[in-house]
Amino acid sequence: MRVLSGIQPSGNLHLGNYFAMMKRMIDYQESNDLFCFIVNYHALTTVSDPNVLRQKTLDAAMDFLALGLDPNKSHFWVQSDLPEVHELTWLLSIVTSMGLLERSHAYKDKTAKGITATHGLFAYPVLMAADILICGANKVPVGKDQKQHVEIARDIAMRFNSSFGETFVMPEADIEDDIATIPGIDGQKMSKSYGNAIEIFADEKSLRQRVMSIKTDSTPVEEPKPIKDNPLFEIYSLFLDDKGKQQLKERFETPGLRYGDVKKELFGVIWEYFTPYREKREQYSKDKAYVYDVLKMGAEKTRKVAQEYVTKARNNVGLNY
Amino acid sequence: MRVLSGIQPSGNLHLGNYFAMMKRMIDYQESNDLFCFIVNYHALTTVSDPNVLRQKTLDAAMDFLALGLDPNKSHFWVQSDLPEVHELTWLLSIVTSMGLLERSHAYKDKTAKGITATHGLFAYPVLMAADILICGANKVPVGKDQKQHVEIARDIAMRFNSSFGETFVMPEADIEDDIATIPGIDGQKMSKSYGNAIEIFADEKSLRQRVMSIKTDSTPVEEPKPIKDNPLFEIYSLFLDDKGKQQLKERFETPGLRYGDVKKELFGVIWEYFTPYREKREQYSKDKAYVYDVLKMGAEKTRKVAQEYVTKARNNVGLNY
Repeated sequence: MRVLSGIQPSGNLHLGNYFAMMKRMIDYQESNDLFCFIVNYHALTTVSDPNVLRQKTLDAAMDFLALGLDPNKSHFWVQSDLPEVHELTWLLSIVTSMGLLERSHAYKDKTAKGITATHGLFAYPVLMAADILICGANKVPVGKDQKQHVEIARDIAMRFNSSFGETFVMPEADIEDDIATIPGIDGQKMSKSYGNAIEIFADEKSLRQRVMSIKTDSTPVEEPKPIKDNPLFEIYSLFLDDKGKQQLKERFETPGLRYGDVKKELFGVIWEYFTPYREKREQYSKDKAYVYDVLKMGAEKTRKVAQEYVTKARNNVGLNY
Repeated sequence: MRVLSGIQPSGNLHLGNYFAMMKRMIDYQESNDLFCFIVNYHALTTVSDPNVLRQKTLDAAMDFLALGLDPNKSHFWVQSDLPEVHELTWLLSIVTSMGLLERSHAYKDKTAKGITATHGLFAYPVLMAADILICGANKVPVGKDQKQHVEIARDIAMRFNSSFGETFVMPEADIEDDIATIPGIDGQKMSKSYGNAIEIFADEKSLRQRVMSIKTDSTPVEEPKPIKDNPLFEIYSLFLDDKGKQQLKERFETPGLRYGDVKKELFGVIWEYFTPYREKREQYSKDKAYVYDVLKMGAEKTRKVAQEYVTKARNNVGLNY
């Protein structure tokens, strides 16, 4: 089964990104043919500073490799290293009705938020359809907000196949709605924009400071502590299996527990959990040539799959004069 | 001066195409750096039969080569042999406001005529802007109906340059409004769709039949013939210099002229005029390998120019992570 997932080059990773998305995605490489790419062409619709885009693209690549994405087990590349996707976008555009794009929620939402209504923003779902169809993806794990985009891709694939003959695999959205919301240090959903995130590759001092700032309630030490809506409990639980969670629950329910002690402990757990990744991350940042090689190889590997679909589509519409 | 001109792969050429467009374009190769390409990606927005597109693309290539387009003096290629243009289209899309495209007359006209409102049709001006900007064209000779598209390209180039630094040459439309309308055999503007065209590569019998069918008035032989709104006079004039035209005018004004004789004469003139081209055309149709080689070489030659602009644009937006 080919599973496709795009990564926004969106900067410093936090626990929310890691547990809600990256870890799950990286796990796919074990049992599926994972296609995983950094969507820097898409990012252009919202990132206008070239230096920021360059840095974030490279950071995202190093993050994923450090966190265990295995370029030998998966297809891992940067979107702009496979510019062929734009030719396919055009071939899809000729069967894409304007109505289909005009109904896109994401476009309406983004322009409503004040993002300039550019053609890039409007055409985004066609590029995304090409991303999906160019590698014959069967399954596209997405959040609810992206479900419509996969449906648009299905619609376009269906029209193309019926106009020009069987060309594309029909992709299916895999809605990940069972992801528990991961709270930030203030208890709200963890998000960079809320300023409540715990970055996974922060330095020791910053990480400790961050963990020590997790909001706790004023239950006296000698009373049992609540576990519901308690970000300290919830964040800690991310690192525990069921048995560990049960034990933590019992500790919270036992009078005498000091939040400060648990925070110190949690800092240690997080620091340790990410230590091997952090070390790999540092290694990569000192050997960028290796990272570039891996990405180049990844693009070549994906190109072999992509060329098959692009060639088929080109021939089917009659570009092979 | 770089002059760019796109050729629709629209099928059998007639005198109208030749004198109003092709001859003028081919003449550019003598004094300018001519970029001339067969727009099969654009054609996809209206041609849905792959076999038709293939045949027309190859026909257009053979026509132009036969009529004197010199691939050594010019850049001559098929649009789909330079798929890089689509990546540039995306980079332009991110600075193209939706309003700019929504104001396109051609899109409104085409959808009003019942052509399906696809994204390809809507995005056409962005692809056309990429066609122009990818080869740094200074001058784009177009009919009045295409003037707005060149203005859109200028607008996009300006926005891109101001957002991401000087990248593109500003193109200028060169409106060819001094082209006299070439009449068909019924006196209306010559057009394939009116069924009044004289095809330049028709066989001898068909061509003769066509020329003999040119509509004439019922002025008696012994009276002077009118030259105004007389398609026979106008079509014949296409093959004459000023002196020749003056002589023809005098013959028309002299009583005794028989339209039938003039038609026979005109057939001979047309047949002879296109004989060397027809022979070359036949040669090419027997040696398609040569035509493919020429087109391949043309795409490579253009690619050298195109890559410069694509690379500059990629780097300027920050895709060179």
